[in-house]
Amino acid sequence: MRERILNLLYQRKKKYVSGEELSRKLGISRTAIWKHIQTLKGEGYKIVSQKRLGYSLISVPDLLLPYEIERGLKTKILGKRIYHFREIGSTNDFAIELVRKGIEEGAIVVAETQAKGKGRLGREWSSPFGGLWLSIILKPKILPTQAPRMTVIAALGVAKTIRKLYSLKALIKWPNDVLIRSKVGTIRANGRMRKKGSRVFKKVCGILTEMSAEQDTVNYVVIGIGANLNIDIKKFPIEFRKNTTSIEKELSHKIDRVEFTKRTLEEIENFYLLFKKRGFAPILKEWKKISATLGKGIKAVSGRRIIEGKAIDIDSDGALIIETKEGKQEKILAGDVTLITR
Amino acid sequence: MRERILNLLYQRKKKYVSGEELSRKLGISRTAIWKHIQTLKGEGYKIVSQKRLGYSLISVPDLLLPYEIERGLKTKILGKRIYHFREIGSTNDFAIELVRKGIEEGAIVVAETQAKGKGRLGREWSSPFGGLWLSIILKPKILPTQAPRMTVIAALGVAKTIRKLYSLKALIKWPNDVLIRSKVGTIRANGRMRKKGSRVFKKVCGILTEMSAEQDTVNYVVIGIGANLNIDIKKFPIEFRKNTTSIEKELSHKIDRVEFTKRTLEEIENFYLLFKKRGFAPILKEWKKISATLGKGIKAVSGRRIIEGKAIDIDSDGALIIETKEGKQEKILAGDVTLITR
Repeated sequence: MRERILNLLYQRKKKYVSGEELSRKLGISRTAIWKHIQTLKGEGYKIVSQKRLGYSLISVPDLLLPYEIERGLKTKILGKRIYHFREIGSTNDFAIELVRKGIEEGAIVVAETQAKGKGRLGREWSSPFGGLWLSIILKPKILPTQAPRMTVIAALGVAKTIRKLYSLKALIKWPNDVLIRSKVGTIRANGRMRKKGSRVFKKVCGILTEMSAEQDTVNYVVIGIGANLNIDIKKFPIEFRKNTTSIEKELSHKIDRVEFTKRTLEEIENFYLLFKKRGFAPILKEWKKISATLGKGIKAVSGRRIIEGKAIDIDSDGALIIETKEGKQEKILAGDVTLITR
Repeated sequence: MRERILNLLYQRKKKYVSGEELSRKLGISRTAIWKHIQTLKGEGYKIVSQKRLGYSLISVPDLLLPYEIERGLKTKILGKRIYHFREIGSTNDFAIELVRKGIEEGAIVVAETQAKGKGRLGREWSSPFGGLWLSIILKPKILPTQAPRMTVIAALGVAKTIRKLYSLKALIKWPNDVLIRSKVGTIRANGRMRKKGSRVFKKVCGILTEMSAEQDTVNYVVIGIGANLNIDIKKFPIEFRKNTTSIEKELSHKIDRVEFTKRTLEEIENFYLLFKKRGFAPILKEWKKISATLGKGIKAVSGRRIIEGKAIDIDSDGALIIETKEGKQEKILAGDVTLITR
């Protein structure tokens, strides 16, 4: 009901809608309308009321509220159920609880901040206010070995959103990061500016896919997306700052986080449906086009293995193929990759 | 404390231990002793008390109580924490709840019956009283693709236990069943007895391994073991009876379920520690020795693939290698296998 009231106010934003009209269109009493308006105000909506004129929506809060994400969202599966938190431990953990209670595919969890955001391999993930901390529940019919494909689909969705909305050159660093080209102008230790042409790519989004599986089949995956949107880089722990950036920093202005969230859900769903219809080949093709890794000199640490060489291909399982100096081809399924620039 | 009282009563089973002695040795009041004895009686222990003589343990209940499993259990990891239920939905589901709350490796969940026992691929698993319905929590440092190795370790542990305790020929049917040779004497439809030499192997235990993983690493595995011990085959749904047997049926007498549970935990732990120390090669070697699948004509259904041929090897990932009639080698990671006997 609150969503419907909001939608009516939205249609005439900054103009007035009378309590009587709302009451008539929604079939509830004017007192009930008034109560819902109070709740919306409590959630951060600025709504003024004038005698005889009614209610007018002045501004919406800078929050990823379900009302806002749902409005005009063009998806069939993703975001059909939205759980929103001002603060949560970890959106992935909450999503796993939900899916274990039987929630359907496509439900999402979104939070303004995470107290215990998780990175890969139990690492900490800094989640200050202004980012998008999102978990998506999917139940694809795949083998456990194919789960990395879901990470790729999510990374593609995020990269495409960044490219389309902000015209920033977003690339995917194998296996699970989205990078964007960072501005020139960093002052080096020696006081000189970075030379033009030496622009670097920095991390703007990381993806943590967790799965539950049996030998034969994946029960579910939870795709955790952490995207640095309207964040001052100084809010990140000092050790992350060098390689991390935010959309705000690169654009020099804040973006509409709700719009970003909606587009990301739509892009990911498109790739997911494409995968379901035509398999992984078209996904792989898209991925290769915007890979930050392919063709580069890299150092990869996978478990106890350390491999240096050139990243020459990504195979159909999503594994990275590296050609070493000795001309040998090595394949890794997961790991930490450093791009070697000389 | 109840465990310590029981242990003292055990040491002089069917003789008397005075309340005063118990009180002195355990440092608690005689009233406290009496209360603990009442609780034990409530759990099914037959304990008689005689004035001036004290307490005497007459019999223990036919249940897989933690006191009983822990007594003399020779493991370092497995069963150090035991959760026991008269009835539960699914021991695997409960174990997953536990591990998500942070319980340590080696904790086990055991139940007398399961209301919603789970088989592979969401299939039902019949769990009447008299079996062992056990889940083991492990946190091995392995890649998600290596999780099937944990199923193999569990299957080996169960097969070895059956061989050592009852001298029954137990084999492992790829990927996750333990079979035993079933008795001659089945009367065929035509009224004649099965010919000698045509003995068949039937399923006595199934294993369902569930894992939680990221791309790089397994967070935990829960190994569910369902073993038909003291069960009348007629208790199983009619469609399972043909290929299913129980230890009781093949031995024609009931076994000590607690002993079976303890030995199984010990055997599995031995293989698990061997794996941690020396890797999968020695496990694979043991497995191949008692495989019901290798060298046999089989039909395998894996997802949408159906492969007929001869099972010729199991590779280091635990995948089954099948040689088809055309001489082609096919590899499957998981699936349903039917042995073709002609």
